[in-house]
Parts: sequence; C-alpha cells; structure tokens
Amino acid sequence: MNALSRVQINLLACTLLLGCTQVLSQDFEPLPKSAAQQGDTDEKIALGKKLYFDPRLSATGTVSCNTCHNLMEGGDDGRPTSMGVDGLTGPRNAPTVWNSVFQASQFWDGRVPTLEDQAKGPMVADVEMGMAGHDQVIGRIQAIPGYIRKFESVFGPSDAVTIENAVEAIAAFERTLITPDSAFDRYLSGDKVAMSDVQIRGMELFESTGCTECHSGPAFNGWQPGSDGEFVEFPRITDSTFVKKYDLISDLGRSNATGDRSDDHYFKTPTLRNITLTAPYLHNGRVGSLSETVRLMASTQLDAELSDDEVAELVAFLSALEGRFPEIALPRLPSRLGESVLQQPEAAKGFGDATGH
Amino acid sequence: MNALSRVQINLLACTLLLGCTQVLSQDFEPLPKSAAQQGDTDEKIALGKKLYFDPRLSATGTVSCNTCHNLMEGGDDGRPTSMGVDGLTGPRNAPTVWNSVFQASQFWDGRVPTLEDQAKGPMVADVEMGMAGHDQVIGRIQAIPGYIRKFESVFGPSDAVTIENAVEAIAAFERTLITPDSAFDRYLSGDKVAMSDVQIRGMELFESTGCTECHSGPAFNGWQPGSDGEFVEFPRITDSTFVKKYDLISDLGRSNATGDRSDDHYFKTPTLRNITLTAPYLHNGRVGSLSETVRLMASTQLDAELSDDEVAELVAFLSALEGRFPEIALPRLPSRLGESVLQQPEAAKGFGDATGH
Repeated sequence: MNALSRVQINLLACTLLLGCTQVLSQDFEPLPKSAAQQGDTDEKIALGKKLYFDPRLSATGTVSCNTCHNLMEGGDDGRPTSMGVDGLTGPRNAPTVWNSVFQASQFWDGRVPTLEDQAKGPMVADVEMGMAGHDQVIGRIQAIPGYIRKFESVFGPSDAVTIENAVEAIAAFERTLITPDSAFDRYLSGDKVAMSDVQIRGMELFESTGCTECHSGPAFNGWQPGSDGEFVEFPRITDSTFVKKYDLISDLGRSNATGDRSDDHYFKTPTLRNITLTAPYLHNGRVGSLSETVRLMASTQLDAELSDDEVAELVAFLSALEGRFPEIALPRLPSRLGESVLQQPEAAKGFGDATGH
Repeated sequence: MNALSRVQINLLACTLLLGCTQVLSQDFEPLPKSAAQQGDTDEKIALGKKLYFDPRLSATGTVSCNTCHNLMEGGDDGRPTSMGVDGLTGPRNAPTVWNSVFQASQFWDGRVPTLEDQAKGPMVADVEMGMAGHDQVIGRIQAIPGYIRKFESVFGPSDAVTIENAVEAIAAFERTLITPDSAFDRYLSGDKVAMSDVQIRGMELFESTGCTECHSGPAFNGWQPGSDGEFVEFPRITDSTFVKKYDLISDLGRSNATGDRSDDHYFKTPTLRNITLTAPYLHNGRVGSLSETVRLMASTQLDAELSDDEVAELVAFLSALEGRFPEIALPRLPSRLGESVLQQPEAAKGFGDATGH
C-alpha cells in the first residue's frame, strides 16, 4: 500500500467506522496550565529569571540562556544552529524552552533527564556560553553582591551560591514558561469555533496520517507525566529523497549520548507546541519552512506523500498550537557597584575603524 | 597652585564666603521626568521597543540594540568594547542608552545629532549588527507580516516600512528610557535624608574639585535643552601617568567625525547618571573600576590628586545618581508563520562536538 492510500484509508475508516465528521481526540490532550513543583517559590523563580537573562554568565559577557532560547520569540533563536561566544556555532538547532518542562529528558539526544541538568550544560559548552567551568560561573555570581543576597534569601545563609542552587532557580523559572490556552486547547475544551474549518481538517489529517504515533500527549511529543520519554528513529525511511537533500544522516543522535549503536539515528520527539514560531526546523536546522518539514516528516517517517492541500491543512492545524504566552517583566540584573564583573579589560583593539560607538 | 590646594581653597571659599555647609546647587539640576516628543504615541513606542529588542535585524540573527545597550543592566554591555556579529569587537565602549535623549549628539565623537540618526549606525556597522545595508534591514522587516501591520498602523498604509520610520519608532522608545527620582534628585527636591552624609560630602567635593566644569546639567554631561553639546579635550594633562597606562592617546575622538585636527582628542562629555552600573569605563573601556576612573579624571582633566577618602566620597555621590528604572514588559516579537526570517540555513557544521543542543 502506498502512503497516500494509507492516509485515505485511515480517513475512510474514521468516517465509516466511527461516523465522525471530526477525529476522536483520544490522542489529543490540553496543555496543563501549571507545571510548578513544590518549592518553586516566587522568590526562587525571580532569581532564576535573573540568571536566565544574565549574559555575564558567559565568557564574553554576551550570551545568556535567553540568547538561544529567546522568550520574545519562539523560545529559540531562529537560526539553523546556535551562535555562542566569539561567534562560534554548534551542531544542532536550539530546541524551544517553552513547555520544555513537559519532556522526560532534555537536548535532542535526551542525554540528561531534568531542566536542572540541562541548565548546567550550555554555561560550560565551548561553543555556547564558553565558561571554563562551573567554578568560574559561581565566581562571577559571587562577585555581584545583589546576587549573593538573593541566593542567601532563597537558599539560606550557608554556602548559598552553588551551581546546584543556580540551576535549581533557573529550572524553577523555566517551569513557568508554558503556553496553555492555544486555539487547539480551547477547541478541546469545548469552544468549537476556536479553530477554523481548515485547522479542524488539519487536526483530523494529523491523526489519520499517523503523526500522532509520535506526536501525542499534551505537548505533542509522546510525553506523559512520569514517562521515560520517547525516542524515535529518524529518518526511518532512509531512501526518502529528503534524507540526502537535508543531510539527515550525519548526526547519530541518541547514540552520541548512550554510546549504544542501536541508538544510532534515534532522536527525542520534539514538541509541536508553537512550532510555527521556531523556523528553521529539525535537529540540524536545515529546513527553512514548516510546510517542507511536514512533507519531509511524512516521507521519512510514514512513507507518505502529501498533497499541497494536505500540507496546508496540517500547517494550519499546527498554527492552532500557538499558545498564550505569559507576560514577562524584564528583570533588573544586580550590579557590582562601579566595578567590572568580567575580567579586567583586554588590550583595546585598533582605532582604524570609525564604525563603533 | 597644585591640584590638592585648589580643591582645598574651593572648599574653603565655599565655607567662608557663602557660609554654606553644603554646596550651592546652581550646577545641579534634577533629571526631567519625561522626554517625550510630540508624535511619540504609545503605538509608535511599542513598535520601537520591538525593533530595539529584535536580533533578527542583525546579519547573524543574534545581535539587537539591547545586546550592547542592555536595559536589564546599565544600558550598556559591561564589556571593554562591544561584541557584535560573529564575535567581532569594535573600538569603543558602549555608552549607556539610559537618558541618552539628554544629549545634543550621539556616539563618543558626537558624529550624529539625534537618536534617530544614531539608530541607523549599528545596524550596518560590520562589527556590530553587520547588515549589508539598510535595504537588507527593511527586507527582513518586510518578511514579517506582523511588523508590516504595525508599521502601517503607526505610519499609514503607504510605504510604511522604511528605515526612516524604523528609527523614528526606535527613538520614540528610547525617549522613554529615562531614570528620574535618584537619591540625588530626591535630595535636590527637598528630601534631605535621601542622600547619606558621605554622599553629600561627595556632592560638595564634586563641585569644589571642578568636576562640574564639564559634568553639569540634569544629566551631568554639560547638556541643556537646546544646547549644541559639549566636547572637551581628553586627556588635557597629557603627562599624567594615567595617559600611558590606559592608552588615552590612540583614539583621536571627535576629529574622526569632523576631520578637523583641532578636534583631536576631543570627546563628548558622557552622562554620569547610573555611572556605577556601567563598568568598565572611558571611551576605550580600559579602566575596570569607578574609583580608578575618578582618580584618573581628576588627574588628566583637573591636574588634581585625590586622597582615598575623597575618591570614596565621590564614588558614594555618584552612586546617588542611580535612578528609578521604568518597568519594561518583554515584548513579543512578530513571527513569520512557519518560515525562517534569516536567509536559508547554511551548511550544517560537523558533528564531532557533542556539547550542542
């Protein structure tokens, strides 16, 4: 059976057997409206927010968590792969931080289980924030009296400024970064005009095509509370023309983390929440548009070839997953009264170029 | 007469002739509480704010106005000289954007008169935002439907997305970036306990030492409404030991802008508002601490040598110039539904490094 006919038969089965003019929604769940954990106090969240936005936690003083996971946009950086300190670039596309709490593991290869563990990585990754080690991160924080006071207030007066406490605060803030109340969620909760007809057709097609085999659950990533996470072979259909076109073979994915060859080309299923805001796409950021990505995924994962109308309907449905973003006040970052936080100024560069400040 | 004795005589004159226990404040003025211009509508300001925070206006998609003029901090970047796209660095220290409306000209060499003109520069400076030209900037904006709608709403439906309109909106936003109600302002307005005793002594010393010769007016930069701006020779005393130590000679300053040799080593007097938040200091960012900078300025400009106590008092006074920062909500940046705003993804880099996302 070719792919197109499978889609058609799925739709037919839905219509004939279930008598439905819309798909049953057992694969669909609304996004929870809170993900707070016990101990996520307002004060801890506020501290984590400052750290999240603070570029002084990078070697050059230019890169914060928000640089690659920009909360003004889709929680990513809009680049194929991220740019860290000194203009260095990494190998993978920045995943969105929005709703990242609704995952059983972090990074494309799922190499750490928690938001806390994730937050430790980029600070000391040479192509991201580029710090020599967590000791240097803590040294920067300890140089800023306002931070010491906040850490002591949140974590107690003894040995408050530690990397464990820093990432605990950052993760507490990240657990607030959720986007409920999308058109899709409102539709699910009974507001039948929240989605347009084309979005509803796209939703039906999303299920009947088989997308929900991986993209299920509240975040459309296979995750459920308490689950161990979903890793899926990508690409499954290696002779798809998309595989060579977008180099879907070079990155071995999860086996980089586990060392197990049977994990070659397995990746964590990414959330589709707000996916319209995070172009370009895939682990390598090689695909510039969502419509091409939809076409590609149907081909490489489901051996299905979609029509232009089907692609348009699926993209319309995915646009219904844009959630309500919380209002976030810009934090004030504590200062070090009249003293540089970065190391003493380097030698100034030449003055031949008059384009500077 | 050496410098120290001049300071002492000034203080003596103040005490004997004027019978004052505190300096008369003819050199001192409160910061205005608004700098809005006619036409600065809420809608225009909101558009300018989005543009100010949008890194997609840079070649790499990583550098926004806020990168070097960070509103979470002192309106600068805390670096000796700024880092733009691809890790490139410029020749000068980023001036604060806070209260930049209270200047007769912009940049260290005052090479443009307005905030609007200033905003055009960094977008196309190769070591800052690195765009090939303003046409490319406008092309990026025009690729984002949400921006087109905002521009048309603010500027009318015809030819709305132009660089002139973009910088008009950015400047309108920047005119809201003022920090009134510092301890000093409250002291001036009659709240005599707003400043501590040491800050008051510092204020008296600031005037008697001669700092107000240049650092006068509401922003402590010689500016008055309608003035043409103050340019001052720096360093004046070229045999000060500080001159060689911090390379105060290489940058010719204003003559870079005017081409007039008589402007060699002239610079625009920078504001001292929030100066405690903007280390490191001077046009070249070579001095890491404010106390050293105070010592240096006394030496190179006033031929004065200050005691440790005097330096501490002056720094204490300068800390009283930290203003009240407006609360700023993080803007939501408009997206391009499921399409990359940057150019099509470049070739992905190698995957040898597992430190990425």
